[in-house]
Amino acid sequence: MKTCTITFLPYKKDIVVNEGENLIRAAMEAGIHINASCGGEGVCAKCRILVEQGAVDDGLSERLSKEDIEKGYRLACKSIVRSDVVIRIPVESSVDTSVLNMTSPRKKSCIEEMDISSLKESGKFIPPVEKRLITVSEPSHEDNRSDASRVIQTLSDECGEHRLEFEMPVLQQLPDVLREKNYQTTVTIVRPVRDGHKNHIIHMSAGDRLAQKYAIAIDIGTTTVYGEILNTETGESLASYGDFNGQISYGEDVISRIVFAEKGDGAEKLQKIVVHTINKIIEKIIQRSKVDLQDISIVTLAANTTMTQLFLGINPRYIRRAPYVPATMFYPQCKATDLGLNVSNHAIALIYPCVSSYVGGDIVAGVMGSGMYHTDELTLFIDMGTNAEIVIGNKEWMTCAACSAGPAFEGGGVEHGMRASKGAIEDFSIDPITFEPMILTISNVRPKGICGSGLLTMLAVLFENGVIDQSGKYNTDLKTPRIRKQNDVYEYVVVWADQTQIDRDIVLTEIDIDNLIRAKGAMYSGYMTLLTSVGLNIDDLDRIILAGGFGSYVDLEKAMTIGLLPETDPEKVTYIGNGSLMGARMSSISNHIRQDVGETVARMTNFELSETPSYMDNYVAALFLPHTDMKLFPNLNERMIQRKQLNLQQNVNK
Amino acid sequence: MKTCTITFLPYKKDIVVNEGENLIRAAMEAGIHINASCGGEGVCAKCRILVEQGAVDDGLSERLSKEDIEKGYRLACKSIVRSDVVIRIPVESSVDTSVLNMTSPRKKSCIEEMDISSLKESGKFIPPVEKRLITVSEPSHEDNRSDASRVIQTLSDECGEHRLEFEMPVLQQLPDVLREKNYQTTVTIVRPVRDGHKNHIIHMSAGDRLAQKYAIAIDIGTTTVYGEILNTETGESLASYGDFNGQISYGEDVISRIVFAEKGDGAEKLQKIVVHTINKIIEKIIQRSKVDLQDISIVTLAANTTMTQLFLGINPRYIRRAPYVPATMFYPQCKATDLGLNVSNHAIALIYPCVSSYVGGDIVAGVMGSGMYHTDELTLFIDMGTNAEIVIGNKEWMTCAACSAGPAFEGGGVEHGMRASKGAIEDFSIDPITFEPMILTISNVRPKGICGSGLLTMLAVLFENGVIDQSGKYNTDLKTPRIRKQNDVYEYVVVWADQTQIDRDIVLTEIDIDNLIRAKGAMYSGYMTLLTSVGLNIDDLDRIILAGGFGSYVDLEKAMTIGLLPETDPEKVTYIGNGSLMGARMSSISNHIRQDVGETVARMTNFELSETPSYMDNYVAALFLPHTDMKLFPNLNERMIQRKQLNLQQNVNK
Repeated sequence: MKTCTITFLPYKKDIVVNEGENLIRAAMEAGIHINASCGGEGVCAKCRILVEQGAVDDGLSERLSKEDIEKGYRLACKSIVRSDVVIRIPVESSVDTSVLNMTSPRKKSCIEEMDISSLKESGKFIPPVEKRLITVSEPSHEDNRSDASRVIQTLSDECGEHRLEFEMPVLQQLPDVLREKNYQTTVTIVRPVRDGHKNHIIHMSAGDRLAQKYAIAIDIGTTTVYGEILNTETGESLASYGDFNGQISYGEDVISRIVFAEKGDGAEKLQKIVVHTINKIIEKIIQRSKVDLQDISIVTLAANTTMTQLFLGINPRYIRRAPYVPATMFYPQCKATDLGLNVSNHAIALIYPCVSSYVGGDIVAGVMGSGMYHTDELTLFIDMGTNAEIVIGNKEWMTCAACSAGPAFEGGGVEHGMRASKGAIEDFSIDPITFEPMILTISNVRPKGICGSGLLTMLAVLFENGVIDQSGKYNTDLKTPRIRKQNDVYEYVVVWADQTQIDRDIVLTEIDIDNLIRAKGAMYSGYMTLLTSVGLNIDDLDRIILAGGFGSYVDLEKAMTIGLLPETDPEKVTYIGNGSLMGARMSSISNHIRQDVGETVARMTNFELSETPSYMDNYVAALFLPHTDMKLFPNLNERMIQRKQLNLQQNVNK
Repeated sequence: MKTCTITFLPYKKDIVVNEGENLIRAAMEAGIHINASCGGEGVCAKCRILVEQGAVDDGLSERLSKEDIEKGYRLACKSIVRSDVVIRIPVESSVDTSVLNMTSPRKKSCIEEMDISSLKESGKFIPPVEKRLITVSEPSHEDNRSDASRVIQTLSDECGEHRLEFEMPVLQQLPDVLREKNYQTTVTIVRPVRDGHKNHIIHMSAGDRLAQKYAIAIDIGTTTVYGEILNTETGESLASYGDFNGQISYGEDVISRIVFAEKGDGAEKLQKIVVHTINKIIEKIIQRSKVDLQDISIVTLAANTTMTQLFLGINPRYIRRAPYVPATMFYPQCKATDLGLNVSNHAIALIYPCVSSYVGGDIVAGVMGSGMYHTDELTLFIDMGTNAEIVIGNKEWMTCAACSAGPAFEGGGVEHGMRASKGAIEDFSIDPITFEPMILTISNVRPKGICGSGLLTMLAVLFENGVIDQSGKYNTDLKTPRIRKQNDVYEYVVVWADQTQIDRDIVLTEIDIDNLIRAKGAMYSGYMTLLTSVGLNIDDLDRIILAGGFGSYVDLEKAMTIGLLPETDPEKVTYIGNGSLMGARMSSISNHIRQDVGETVARMTNFELSETPSYMDNYVAALFLPHTDMKLFPNLNERMIQRKQLNLQQNVNK
């Protein structure tokens, strides 16, 4: 892909982007502030920039005068970069570049993809379900063994397969399948978890279907369900699809789902709904991949404990009652159709085991999928969400815990909070002098609200620029109309009503900030309490793995600025995306994962944070930005000191 | 039970019978001939006897004159014995008692019951499904392991149970079942066939259901289906029921069923019908035993290969086509409800494996149930029927074969042949001088026809009395109106029309006799060919086991007289009744049977008689009564010589 260099003047800051990048997004990426409030619809026309060298596509607007356009002015939010360009930002505030340069380019965690090649190298690429192509000899008077004996003998002689056992439905079709293509047949075999146990023949089809080896991996999230269809030979993903978990109308979080399940036929209803969601997704990915349903031999599923129990029809009542006991850690292999899934009759279902009621199969899947379970590196695994799950350890030992962070970073309990969908403010910067904002929205439309990554960034930017203090209170001395008091609560106006889709000012109130601080405090206390419980410090960690939908947007530096993440070398941080789906995928293509997962779960010591007094102490200490103890955030501390000095200098210069 | 001694005069023959025995049946048992044609309805009044000492109940009839009654005459067929009596038979022919005394009392094979006590002694009384009663500790903050972990730990600590795995439906109920009776629960566990494999938890019920351990054993016969409900703790049978296999209207034998199955949805129809029959039987035995369906954990089934494949929905087409290949020898354990059986959702089904298309699970079940598989004794196992199956061997080796005997002994291809049901002539003797018959019918009603045991006895009696010769032809020199020629075929009138239910003479024609000889010839040739193939003689056998519905009525001496059985010491012959059901029962209560059956089947070498030239030679040699080679029947030969001499003497005496 062609790349282009953009030079931003007057800051002399260069950034290399892919051809076709939106100019305002490139600026945000580079840490360049351009006032912009309308999300990229071109209505506020605040993001005027001058193209000094090169050219951009589009960027025109009736909000620009004919003269301006001739001079080279464009709207940044509408401009697409096709070649190297030099762009001048009309600086509205006489901000010193040194201040701007303190905003470093975004530090995202490196993304880890499923590591198929290393699986292949280590010989672990043996799917739990395999196909074998055989041609058995025709029966004769001299050899009139049964059809089944004939198949088993051939599999033994030609493929080295042993300890085979037929499933009844295969036998029911056997005589006809065998003769349909002149005794040539493709046999589907499920491997045992442990060596020495039976290999089950779950399917036979006439002729050569050897190349058609597919699996479906499903992540049942509380909010969203994702499905993916995989080639189990190559590991390649053929199609994927995500949709809201249909249960969402019966409660946003696991607790409200359990409450609903406890009433009347609630549990049954929730089971049916999530099965329906999964089946919709399966239909979609089958359509998209054009795979024959008959060629799907395995469905792997991962979910938190509540979602798993609801999906399987296991009463989740005791999950939310002390002492928080799940029905089981391990789920037996079963037929996918027995779980209501619309797949072929022979496909098996594998479900990730859980550690406890609040450290579920999704986390175990992440631990497996990320490879944390077999690494020497001391790792902190965090799945951020309403419930944050934390795992610390390596291949020798692991401890884990869950804490309820609340839904603030998913937009819950925040006045203009919203899910990450079209129109959500997802990125934010501020002019350090005028305190005018720059916003980016999902899909570049007028803003409707603020999603998790927007809230996180906003909190960090407002804090670093002194708009809010360590306790999350607005600095009411600042000269900006954007900070105001409404109904006795201070707030910052992120977007004025006329530039929103909702005809109301989008604001961030001190109450919102409080909720956000509480959420990040809960998570931070989680890591710290768990680390302390095993006698470790942040510095002892070799690696931090972030999982969960939220993690993908996180600007690491900003997450550390507000104390959502402990301050550490961003290079140590890896993002694995949907860890649950990743784990589900892995177990579709590696039977070793299935073998290892039992031991891994047994190794994961569950830690009940609510039972640990130091958790509350750590929590209270974390209810500041970034923390009461700035020694834990030395880099930020250094930056804050520099910034203060620059501010002082500027005030002197004025 | 009280017994009574009956002395028959003038023969001075005593017999001890149970109180309440019918006098005419006692006479037949003792080998005493009393003319009797009407089956016991009292209409022919030919069975007049004189009670000389003691008294009988009933026996009165308007066909007896007042004077006769006062003298002590009674109808034997109506008389019930309540005490010791002396009975005089009015002898119509001046038959020498020495001739009559040649008719020895009936020699039935000793009946072998299921040998539960020796199973218990040998420690093999471990049912494949067992129950355990446990009370698990209540979860607490200190111990909040999952419900499943708690159950498994308790089973391990208190019952020494290991390698446990839950079935999904159990997990679905687990949290509620556990708490219903305060953590007391009865756990149903399926044992693995081989040690070291998993023990599956298939059911849990709240509270103590330990005593309720039941199994259902089913024999699916081509003609009749039997079911029995067993206590797996004691082996006791609580109820049993038999009914015609509903498939019977689609063909009498396996071949015609297969032919029907090959047309359109025939196979599906036959499957549904037999499942319906089995479910009717299950309903009946559940009703009778008052067992809770939930407490039945296992259903064991045995059937011939065709019946098994039809029941399971496996196309039986190739069973009747050379080279006669069955789909499989072994059937996997599965859920009984998956087979359409109306039992509880957790009950497992075990199906007996077969050796070949014509040596099926019913035979294997008989071999297992009779204990033949683990004995040192060289045994000949015979299941007589339209298809006769033969097994020879002991615990070291076994060879087996099937031969098509035809349905003659089941009444097929015999003019007045019928199934063993009400009104069928089941026993027969003849006055050696007048050739007048004595008949007994099932349920003592007027005769409708002749069933298998009746035909066998008739053939033997007619032959020994010289009414038919070695080739089965009537001696037309005899002075009796009962031998006559109709439509160019000689026949013997067994019952005159006026004493039947069918208003026609019941006869036995030479064509009937031909068919019977062919049937017994086929079976005899089967044993001999199989014996010869392993280099053995009849005399080498330690034991003969008879199985099958037919076998229970067989008078061994008569069976040897016609050459249906090889001549041997009757003490060596054991009758096990429905061997198939016996085997099914055994595998309900002994997991060792399940372990051994695989090896046994592997040890059973199948012999294709139709492929063996000597089979045809043996068959042709056996198409005589008893055989072309009288040296094979030395005892009979001796008797025939004696009889001839007596006859000569009598003729001289006249």
